[in-house]
Amino acid sequence: MVDVAVIGIGQTRVEEHWDKSLRELAGDAVLMAMHDAQVDHVDSIYIGNMMSGVANAQVQLGSLIADWVGQRFTDAVKIESACSSGAAAFRAGYIGVASGEVDVALVVGVEKMTDSPSNEITAALATAADGDWEVDQGVSFVALNALIMQRYMYEYGWKGIDFANFSINAHANAVHNPFARFRKPIDEKRFIQSPMICDPINLMDASPIGDGAAAAVLIRADRLPKSAPKILVAASSAATDSISIHNRRSPLWLAAAERSARQAYAQAGIETEDIDVFEYHDAFTIMAALSLEACGFAAAGRGPVLAKEGAIRIGGKIPVATRGGLKARGHPVGATGMYQIVEVVQQLRSEAGETQISGCEFGMAQSIGGSGSNIVTHIFKRDN
Amino acid sequence: MVDVAVIGIGQTRVEEHWDKSLRELAGDAVLMAMHDAQVDHVDSIYIGNMMSGVANAQVQLGSLIADWVGQRFTDAVKIESACSSGAAAFRAGYIGVASGEVDVALVVGVEKMTDSPSNEITAALATAADGDWEVDQGVSFVALNALIMQRYMYEYGWKGIDFANFSINAHANAVHNPFARFRKPIDEKRFIQSPMICDPINLMDASPIGDGAAAAVLIRADRLPKSAPKILVAASSAATDSISIHNRRSPLWLAAAERSARQAYAQAGIETEDIDVFEYHDAFTIMAALSLEACGFAAAGRGPVLAKEGAIRIGGKIPVATRGGLKARGHPVGATGMYQIVEVVQQLRSEAGETQISGCEFGMAQSIGGSGSNIVTHIFKRDN
Repeated sequence: MVDVAVIGIGQTRVEEHWDKSLRELAGDAVLMAMHDAQVDHVDSIYIGNMMSGVANAQVQLGSLIADWVGQRFTDAVKIESACSSGAAAFRAGYIGVASGEVDVALVVGVEKMTDSPSNEITAALATAADGDWEVDQGVSFVALNALIMQRYMYEYGWKGIDFANFSINAHANAVHNPFARFRKPIDEKRFIQSPMICDPINLMDASPIGDGAAAAVLIRADRLPKSAPKILVAASSAATDSISIHNRRSPLWLAAAERSARQAYAQAGIETEDIDVFEYHDAFTIMAALSLEACGFAAAGRGPVLAKEGAIRIGGKIPVATRGGLKARGHPVGATGMYQIVEVVQQLRSEAGETQISGCEFGMAQSIGGSGSNIVTHIFKRDN
Repeated sequence: MVDVAVIGIGQTRVEEHWDKSLRELAGDAVLMAMHDAQVDHVDSIYIGNMMSGVANAQVQLGSLIADWVGQRFTDAVKIESACSSGAAAFRAGYIGVASGEVDVALVVGVEKMTDSPSNEITAALATAADGDWEVDQGVSFVALNALIMQRYMYEYGWKGIDFANFSINAHANAVHNPFARFRKPIDEKRFIQSPMICDPINLMDASPIGDGAAAAVLIRADRLPKSAPKILVAASSAATDSISIHNRRSPLWLAAAERSARQAYAQAGIETEDIDVFEYHDAFTIMAALSLEACGFAAAGRGPVLAKEGAIRIGGKIPVATRGGLKARGHPVGATGMYQIVEVVQQLRSEAGETQISGCEFGMAQSIGGSGSNIVTHIFKRDN
């Protein structure tokens, strides 16, 4: 295995892109990343996408996008693991380069969700849960998360308002990110007054869907030009859990996230405390809390403390959602994992503007597929 | 890159599996492959599947299947490239093991198509074509192949009957394969009398869909037990072309198949003539002809000659579809690439019974995604 570096990044704004097709969205992010990397050719392409077959009546995104971005004939496939598809695609690209099979890999996460009626998208999102044992009972994806949150509040004594700062922090950071879907700050009053979606999840607990694409170019670290910032993939790790919540040892502990994070720390040779920035998967505030706990930043049931005490803010102990997170940058599901990675790279390159973490050496991105069933963790390191 | 060996294979019969869910189908093939390999643990799982989001309202097959086959917590993702998804998943597993990242990889291709109304499956199959520029014009997937076949007949002077032996050969071989969907021989009369589906493609030119799963276990060759047959992955190569036919230099030449095959021959260090058995992608007889040409077994426009002269039969110059091919074993789209690979391994292990090729050293499997836009080629070698 050779060392792998990220040499280029690109992204579109997350929003309702009525004027762009799926391939155009992907192409915009890809061409930005290739321009950033100063490459005009790649050896292999990995597409992260969850629902184009349903939402866009289009599969085989590998061929579709390879040709569109001027890379016809290139080996290109789609990788899917529900909402962690983008991160899983990045992991496939990482292994391709690390193996020596591929010199230059292109990874792009893309999702176009707003062309479809919302009931179709609600159904499509539910395909990430267990069709035979969860969805067939009438449970939607937000309902599954509501069940987890309800139980969490019951077990640990939290109230809905205790989750407010996860969202307030995300929105505060998104104000400074031109690629974020919602760039308006929110306060506690706005959080309290927001409509209930699925008790106890209110509108401000939930991340918005959207259209978007984010991309990165990977190369062997030993071929990195000397002038380029040396952003290395210090760790790549994935783990699964039962797709259905009722089959897990505990519905309140993301065992696969814990395993994936621990493996990543070991591979990078660091501890939890060494992480300077953490782009976590705050699809719902309950997932934000559970992620922080599974990754070792808080004990079980104590995730909300980090939000309440400000530890998750820029300048805090463990800044999260520094570019807005899923909550405010937006959650184009199969693209999200790549947005998180692009944002960590921005931090390590000191390109995060007003939300820059100072002295950023190690950054982590963790994506959650389903309600905690397919977790992909990457750690990046700035090495010069 | 380390050498990679196939240590276990498994498959279900291709048919209408009304009594099995998607995960059960996959599980049956996986457990057969793991039993065959004598392993009870794998490090990474790769699922080949095209349309479960549409046909089964289920994505995230990685977690779903990992847990079902007793491998909870294992890294597991789905790979998709339309009808070559199974082969693309195998390629991802190959790279995982070859890189040294994974010691034991499990690959399974699975598709469950017969639970859905046929118009929905027709629409789902069309998602493999260009949604914006082909399908939006009302063209179905079979119609695209019919356009190619019509042009091929016009350019090279063939008639429909000249394609009959592709199907007759496939059915003759399927008689001896207990996992094949159709185990009845057909003759020229049956071919001629079969109903027209989309002129000039008749029912016997077209492969049937079906439900099925096929699996393989891969390990580093240096960890292969001495008693096991040494079936090595001699080459793995993939290439894409424009997803839409009208954008290609020629609609009658599978440029990506040629590129993928040539790269594979080079990697294996062999020539076309060294291939002893070829499991090709005979989704339609026109694709059988074009594959043979692109891979160097016949000149452009001369593919049907191989069928007419019997070169494709067991004992012929280049035996194809030796277990029935897509035409008679059946074509559960995302699983098909893995069926082809399992069948080549059967040949190299001398386990192909009445359709065994004698002295089989090199076997090739080539899968075609879309109408020629995503091609994955593998060459296997028996080394003891």
